[in-house]
Amino acid sequence: MLQKVNINFLKDPEEFKLSDPIFIEGLPGIGHVGKLVADHLVNELETEKIVEICSHYFPPQVMVEEDGTIRMPKNEVYVYKSNSGSPDLVILVGDFQSISSEGHFELVNAYMDIARKFNCSKIFTLGGYGVGRLVEEPYVLGAANNKELISELTSFGVRFDKGEPGGGIIGASGLLLGVAELDNIPAACLMGVTSGYMVDPKSASAVLDILMRMLKIEVSVEALDERAKEMEKVIAQIKEMQETAVQQWKSDEDLRYFG
Amino acid sequence: MLQKVNINFLKDPEEFKLSDPIFIEGLPGIGHVGKLVADHLVNELETEKIVEICSHYFPPQVMVEEDGTIRMPKNEVYVYKSNSGSPDLVILVGDFQSISSEGHFELVNAYMDIARKFNCSKIFTLGGYGVGRLVEEPYVLGAANNKELISELTSFGVRFDKGEPGGGIIGASGLLLGVAELDNIPAACLMGVTSGYMVDPKSASAVLDILMRMLKIEVSVEALDERAKEMEKVIAQIKEMQETAVQQWKSDEDLRYFG
Amino acid sequence: MLQKVNINFLKDPEEFKLSDPIFIEGLPGIGHVGKLVADHLVNELETEKIVEICSHYFPPQVMVEEDGTIRMPKNEVYVYKSNSGSPDLVILVGDFQSISSEGHFELVNAYMDIARKFNCSKIFTLGGYGVGRLVEEPYVLGAANNKELISELTSFGVRFDKGEPGGGIIGASGLLLGVAELDNIPAACLMGVTSGYMVDPKSASAVLDILMRMLKIEVSVEALDERAKEMEKVIAQIKEMQETAVQQWKSDEDLRYFG
Amino acid sequence: MLQKVNINFLKDPEEFKLSDPIFIEGLPGIGHVGKLVADHLVNELETEKIVEICSHYFPPQVMVEEDGTIRMPKNEVYVYKSNSGSPDLVILVGDFQSISSEGHFELVNAYMDIARKFNCSKIFTLGGYGVGRLVEEPYVLGAANNKELISELTSFGVRFDKGEPGGGIIGASGLLLGVAELDNIPAACLMGVTSGYMVDPKSASAVLDILMRMLKIEVSVEALDERAKEMEKVIAQIKEMQETAVQQWKSDEDLRYFG
Repeated sequence: MLQKVNINFLKDPEEFKLSDPIFIEGLPGIGHVGKLVADHLVNELETEKIVEICSHYFPPQVMVEEDGTIRMPKNEVYVYKSNSGSPDLVILVGDFQSISSEGHFELVNAYMDIARKFNCSKIFTLGGYGVGRLVEEPYVLGAANNKELISELTSFGVRFDKGEPGGGIIGASGLLLGVAELDNIPAACLMGVTSGYMVDPKSASAVLDILMRMLKIEVSVEALDERAKEMEKVIAQIKEMQETAVQQWKSDEDLRYFG
Repeated sequence: MLQKVNINFLKDPEEFKLSDPIFIEGLPGIGHVGKLVADHLVNELETEKIVEICSHYFPPQVMVEEDGTIRMPKNEVYVYKSNSGSPDLVILVGDFQSISSEGHFELVNAYMDIARKFNCSKIFTLGGYGVGRLVEEPYVLGAANNKELISELTSFGVRFDKGEPGGGIIGASGLLLGVAELDNIPAACLMGVTSGYMVDPKSASAVLDILMRMLKIEVSVEALDERAKEMEKVIAQIKEMQETAVQQWKSDEDLRYFG
Repeated sequence: MLQKVNINFLKDPEEFKLSDPIFIEGLPGIGHVGKLVADHLVNELETEKIVEICSHYFPPQVMVEEDGTIRMPKNEVYVYKSNSGSPDLVILVGDFQSISSEGHFELVNAYMDIARKFNCSKIFTLGGYGVGRLVEEPYVLGAANNKELISELTSFGVRFDKGEPGGGIIGASGLLLGVAELDNIPAACLMGVTSGYMVDPKSASAVLDILMRMLKIEVSVEALDERAKEMEKVIAQIKEMQETAVQQWKSDEDLRYFG
Repeated sequence: MLQKVNINFLKDPEEFKLSDPIFIEGLPGIGHVGKLVADHLVNELETEKIVEICSHYFPPQVMVEEDGTIRMPKNEVYVYKSNSGSPDLVILVGDFQSISSEGHFELVNAYMDIARKFNCSKIFTLGGYGVGRLVEEPYVLGAANNKELISELTSFGVRFDKGEPGGGIIGASGLLLGVAELDNIPAACLMGVTSGYMVDPKSASAVLDILMRMLKIEVSVEALDERAKEMEKVIAQIKEMQETAVQQWKSDEDLRYFG
């Protein structure tokens, strides 16, 4: 039976003996900046998958892989156990955000539960900040639930421009900061400025650059570019196909309700 | 009292002494291919109804039969107890899929419960794959939660074309595969390629042909054609009538909320 | 605290010592035919209010009476204790149907609970059947969960025309029949044929005429006409006002979400 | 974990030793009249925040302050302990109303719980009544769950015009009156007549004037004007930004559902 928010731990968090890990969230969103950076970290660092999350709040469908196998839409948590001076990481990546308004809150509660199980000492959520025009020199806009964190981030080049983002931060990247505040966990959102019209590796590399310096990790930036190109291609393909699917589903709507 | 998902067993599953039955799902969907095939099996084989499912996730209405009696929208499970070399079957057919996104998950959980109660060893979900143009020579596209099943299906002529269906599989036919995977039950979706514009007996017969060879059953294919014609007629009639109903309901909307 | 479906009994059903009462439902719907007839019965017969139903599934607002007092949207159940040859009646009238699809089922479960508390032996739901054009000689179309009831109703002039209403019966009038069937309570829907464009006293009087003969009750038919005129006036007024309200609410939407 | 309706008491209500306090609600709505007046009272009187309310029924986002800190959307309750002849007050202000229909009821249940915890003896809800044209001389329209309260309000100049507001009162300002009636707490809604097109300090000052005389409190009316100007500016800014945000979110919709 699939629970409304179905959390499946593949391993006991205790086993990793993480010390003060940092929680990083990078789910789909504007310009896919957050997803691009977090997916990249999971792939470039030596990480291990530890949690799978399925949910009634994801679209009611399965995806079909190239070889014909299906998979449930899911979000995943990976663990990076550092053996250098960088902190341990717990990274949330995945396919979807909630498709209903209330589901966002349920899912974020679940993400926070996971962060607590790992005793995460800090949270970074990653996203894009769309400005609706091409951005030559992307920079990173920040928001945080904690003033010291703002000072720290500023010292790494994150900008806190008055009145931006004025519309607030929608979805998991925003709500995680708010719910973390209730638990007194310092949390910040790093938003790569982007047009918002495409998967944006340039914006992602600006976010990645800050993260690398803050977390004292090093990963290839070139690979980010390739990942974005692939992602763009897959998205274009899926977009076209989903449009077809939706159209058929709709043109078939009356049939669907046939007795 | 009608539960959110109201499962009514007419008989104890144990009584049938089924051995390793195969679960088959054929609910309304694209081209009604799945429904057509599953309804056909239920009618052509010697089957017995064993479960009735009503739900808050179905449309809030009753249907009216030709003689003026009403019936609740419902899905039904039929049992086929084989007395030859073919496997026993548990067949899910019915009127509706969920009309809400979350309801899909609740209903699929219920379908899986039923499959488990019968100790089903395998699941086939049936559907259509709409391509938006007339299809001269329909074939059957597959997807599965299990690689061995893909090999087996391929040997029966099911095609696993790279990148299709790109948009994933929406509704019960897709989710059943995903939830079955959590239970380690091999499951595949057989999709008859179809225009998606009408009830498609040609596409259904392509699916039926594969099923008959795989399950070593034999049913009339001609009857399928007649069934489709009837279905088409009924659908046309109901479509027209429902449009009228919806229109009135809407034009009456302000009145509805009169105090 | 207001429950999702908030049932408030003003008196113990036992006190009335009803014998085999008949449950009658007349809520807002097409042409307000059902509401008009049921309201009329409540007013013309000597009835007593016994249940008040409020619900989260009604619109989130209160109504304002002419003297400035507010009242919650609510449905009500009245009891008619017969002192002649006619049967006792339990009559459900009110302001609203559910505004959500799932709410319809929750409310109908509650209505059936009430019918069971009174040991109702039969259910008549009242509604309109819109045909989209003016109807000179309205007649009454029927549907039932029971064949004997169809015979009985036919003998009183209710018509059971093949294939009508093709679109089924939406809302409480339909679902009550289906849920009553699960409890083996005979139930029928009486639909006055109507244009669907206005409150229709002519159609209502056709339904009332059948009810009076079946239930051996007598109430003024002229008053029905006046009630319809009043209802029409009030509806026109409320429609205009609600449009204004909705428009303002909408034009104010951005403001509403101001922090 | 954030509950569906998350009530956080910062202090024990008992500590305040309030005597027969009056509950005042002023949440966002038409012309922001209610919010303007209630915010003003909280700021001009010596009040103390005692409750914070977050909810799954608010938009799934956080707001970002000018300094880059985020905050969860929330409603708040302030206490005013009178040291003069005026009554003690419990004032509900905040960012949002529910964004779902059912959520309105859940939130109003929570507001009433709070009112009961303080043993509030009376409730005033504040709102605007939009007439769709500029209003030269705004007056205050009333509605109440209690006839004596209507007389009292009339003596202070509140108008109870026959048939207004015809569309009822939508949201917390309306439902609070209805739910309070179930608890036998006298409650009235004071609606400043307004165009409905902008934050309206003139309409707010009409409501404030009545409140001041009824509650024997005195606060600056000039400050109200300034507060409205600021609110207008902030709203304009946020509106523009939110439109951008929504547009990006939408243009990004297909991407969001990328696997």
